[in-house]
Amino acid sequence: MSTSRIACETLRSRVMSAEQAAAFITSGSTVGMSGFTGSGYPKAVPLALAARIEAEHAAGNPFRVRIWTGASTGPELDGALAKADGIEFRLPYNSDPIAREKINNGTMEYFDMHLSQVAPMAWQGFLGPLDTAVIEVSGIRADGSLIPSSSIGNNKTWLDRASKVILEVNSWQNPALEGMHDIYYGTALPPHRVPIPLVRADDRIGDAYFRCDPDKIVAIVETEAPDRNLPFAAPDAAAHAIAGHLIEFFTHEVARGRLPASLLPLQSGVGNIANAVLTGLVNGPFEDMTSYTEVIQDGMLDLLDSGKLRMASATAFSLSPEAAARLNADMGRYRDKMILRPQEISNHPELIRRLGCLAMNGLIEADIYGNVNSTHVMGSRIQNGIGGSGDFARNAYVSIFMTPSTAKGGKISAIVPQASHVDHISQDVQVIVTEQGLADLRGLSPKQRAALIIQNCAHPDYRPMLADYYARARVGSYGQQSPSLPGEALSWHQRFMDTGSMRV
Amino acid sequence: MSTSRIACETLRSRVMSAEQAAAFITSGSTVGMSGFTGSGYPKAVPLALAARIEAEHAAGNPFRVRIWTGASTGPELDGALAKADGIEFRLPYNSDPIAREKINNGTMEYFDMHLSQVAPMAWQGFLGPLDTAVIEVSGIRADGSLIPSSSIGNNKTWLDRASKVILEVNSWQNPALEGMHDIYYGTALPPHRVPIPLVRADDRIGDAYFRCDPDKIVAIVETEAPDRNLPFAAPDAAAHAIAGHLIEFFTHEVARGRLPASLLPLQSGVGNIANAVLTGLVNGPFEDMTSYTEVIQDGMLDLLDSGKLRMASATAFSLSPEAAARLNADMGRYRDKMILRPQEISNHPELIRRLGCLAMNGLIEADIYGNVNSTHVMGSRIQNGIGGSGDFARNAYVSIFMTPSTAKGGKISAIVPQASHVDHISQDVQVIVTEQGLADLRGLSPKQRAALIIQNCAHPDYRPMLADYYARARVGSYGQQSPSLPGEALSWHQRFMDTGSMRV
Repeated sequence: MSTSRIACETLRSRVMSAEQAAAFITSGSTVGMSGFTGSGYPKAVPLALAARIEAEHAAGNPFRVRIWTGASTGPELDGALAKADGIEFRLPYNSDPIAREKINNGTMEYFDMHLSQVAPMAWQGFLGPLDTAVIEVSGIRADGSLIPSSSIGNNKTWLDRASKVILEVNSWQNPALEGMHDIYYGTALPPHRVPIPLVRADDRIGDAYFRCDPDKIVAIVETEAPDRNLPFAAPDAAAHAIAGHLIEFFTHEVARGRLPASLLPLQSGVGNIANAVLTGLVNGPFEDMTSYTEVIQDGMLDLLDSGKLRMASATAFSLSPEAAARLNADMGRYRDKMILRPQEISNHPELIRRLGCLAMNGLIEADIYGNVNSTHVMGSRIQNGIGGSGDFARNAYVSIFMTPSTAKGGKISAIVPQASHVDHISQDVQVIVTEQGLADLRGLSPKQRAALIIQNCAHPDYRPMLADYYARARVGSYGQQSPSLPGEALSWHQRFMDTGSMRV
Repeated sequence: MSTSRIACETLRSRVMSAEQAAAFITSGSTVGMSGFTGSGYPKAVPLALAARIEAEHAAGNPFRVRIWTGASTGPELDGALAKADGIEFRLPYNSDPIAREKINNGTMEYFDMHLSQVAPMAWQGFLGPLDTAVIEVSGIRADGSLIPSSSIGNNKTWLDRASKVILEVNSWQNPALEGMHDIYYGTALPPHRVPIPLVRADDRIGDAYFRCDPDKIVAIVETEAPDRNLPFAAPDAAAHAIAGHLIEFFTHEVARGRLPASLLPLQSGVGNIANAVLTGLVNGPFEDMTSYTEVIQDGMLDLLDSGKLRMASATAFSLSPEAAARLNADMGRYRDKMILRPQEISNHPELIRRLGCLAMNGLIEADIYGNVNSTHVMGSRIQNGIGGSGDFARNAYVSIFMTPSTAKGGKISAIVPQASHVDHISQDVQVIVTEQGLADLRGLSPKQRAALIIQNCAHPDYRPMLADYYARARVGSYGQQSPSLPGEALSWHQRFMDTGSMRV
């Protein structure tokens, strides 16, 4: 491997193997790693660390670490370390199946956080010290500044806060990434915080590079490995139906003068429904759109290519291998239409409310009043985490949640009498869309919301059961603001646990 | 009554009786009224409107209106109109007992909102047009600008948005209020929003007066009536114990270097626990404090008098008659230490996060994972509303919730297996304090939180029941991130409904 990506002479001497670098990490320490939705995470040191942990365990020695990241990473990080039983505590988000299993069998502690709050809370100090940062970059400049990789996440904060820094310089990353990033260095702890000077989704307010005290850099590892780019799941009929309802809603809002003709900055969760919405917008009537979101996914690339999306601001890429190849083949052109920022900026409540984002997120279940569960299956089993959905939903201009009306072949209804866990309270859930239809809940009381959600969003198989519960709650409830029957409200979940289906 | 408070010649001709003014309000229309926690609400026109509604109903004619306010008001407004069955729909907050009863028996629709969102959502348009504004002011200047009263709330927005404006000029209000207010006129709808230029709790960024198109003013009614100033409830032993735990926590955080010695701007809910905390701070070690909060209450006056609180920013007063008399006797001096702002500014997420408020709010119940119910008794019966607690809790530097560990003479536990309604998700609840103790939940996983909450906060009578539930959930739960038993999780609430007690 060459060191051509390392232009800083003094730092070249710190190039070493992943195994040598991993030796700097001690048991019980806290490690801040790069990585956001499977892009820009370190690919070699975590694997070497996992091997070291397995060896220590085999020798009868305890060895576990606390892992902080941007969001989800890849199998070489969360997967390998979880498999080695090496993660004692994890924040702020996880989607790795092995780590998920460890969390749900109670052997890994997981602090599921608002993504905007990770960096400021790390500065606040109550999370404890950060011992080591392991950060993937795409290059090191002659002056020692770092060219970011395919995600920013919390890298700025990890580099600033860690006592020791290990860099992975990944030559698989496109050198034309340079210049795309916007690293804002104006954050502070109160009482020294000031307004963040961003007023348009395409404003640049920071630097293109990370700063890092070179004395803290203890190791540099060279890699040439692709991001975990998951195959693209083509939208199904339900996803297309949801996209159709949503585009009809936007069209209606523009016609009423309640949204500009170019809409407002789009925030879009990950997944095939989100991709269907973005694809639907390719053929929709809206021009000159922008996005202010967490990740740039396949559908957003399509939307940029169509000329209808002017630019995309995010903190990471989340692309299929095909889309990543498309991006890499033409990075110079895409670069001018994309900005990657720290996640405390991409997800900052101040900026989301100022810009007036149209937030589109998925859910696990919603109840008849529109309280949304995004994280806990049957109220207890974590799926991924709240991620940035709370940052966006509470501060959005319109907060939209999307889901197929059933899951598990119809055995689970996405609309239930009462959410078994709540991530988004009814005040933060303004529109719910399923393939059945859309419920515009803005300005409605709980009972008005219930009528719409049951009628417009629930699957016909579950609609009578919901209507029956609601009618009985209108009689037997303790109060009539949000009628409920506590002895029965979570019985659908218990039934699923007992019988494998929510149906009677 | 004199018209000495009305210095604008052309407007003097529009002075009329409350009955004449109320005649401008039509059935089915939407009326935006002033008022926030019982201060600055109109005292004559709503009573006249209630009388008119009762007469119409007696004559067999339907007559109801939609009422928007700042927050709670007084018996002459919510009480009288609810008693007359005159309110079809109410937002954004209510604490009137008659209106509460109508909501909970299902005859009044109530949209319980984040207080920061009322004004921007009124501008967004989906709440429908605002037909009439009824606003109490303390005077009208020669140029037609309006001297605000003892609360600001949403008055700026109601004056701007309403087709017709009715003013009540209340000569009971202290003329020395003039100059205390700070009305920010820089808000806009996206894409035209800009940073709000406030960086300290005592910054003034607006005007001291409301603007209002004089052509819209259809009526002016003169009044001389006091605000609904509720008697001061002296803090009890539980409140003092909670205050003690909290001041010990602040002292500890300052000692660790995690809070400045002058703390950070205090936000404090209303009530005797909040007052106990403020009184505790009078004797505490912190100097040069500020507050950035919703209301200025009795304890805050004490804290100002002690010299330890440098200034208080809020949107309204919420004082006992004794404290109101104290304030009025010395308004000239207090005025320089107080700022009243629109509630979209006092509660703005951008500003709360920038300032790093220490948020202290009450709750109805919290579950073992720290999800908080602030609004719905037994999950369905509305108490007051979410108010500003969501604006502050999610954006605070430290988000604290306080409650006695039991209610109704021990028949209700404030700590339950699962919250029957969720207003504040666990991510937004960092510290829970009861008279039993304080749980610092920052940075902990759900299971770590549960252990602390049960041990530190629950009442000893309920601690074994909670520990038993939790131990069984650790075995029988679907997943172990937040162990729960859906068939049993809300059984304490059902038991209370069935037997009058949560005890077995």
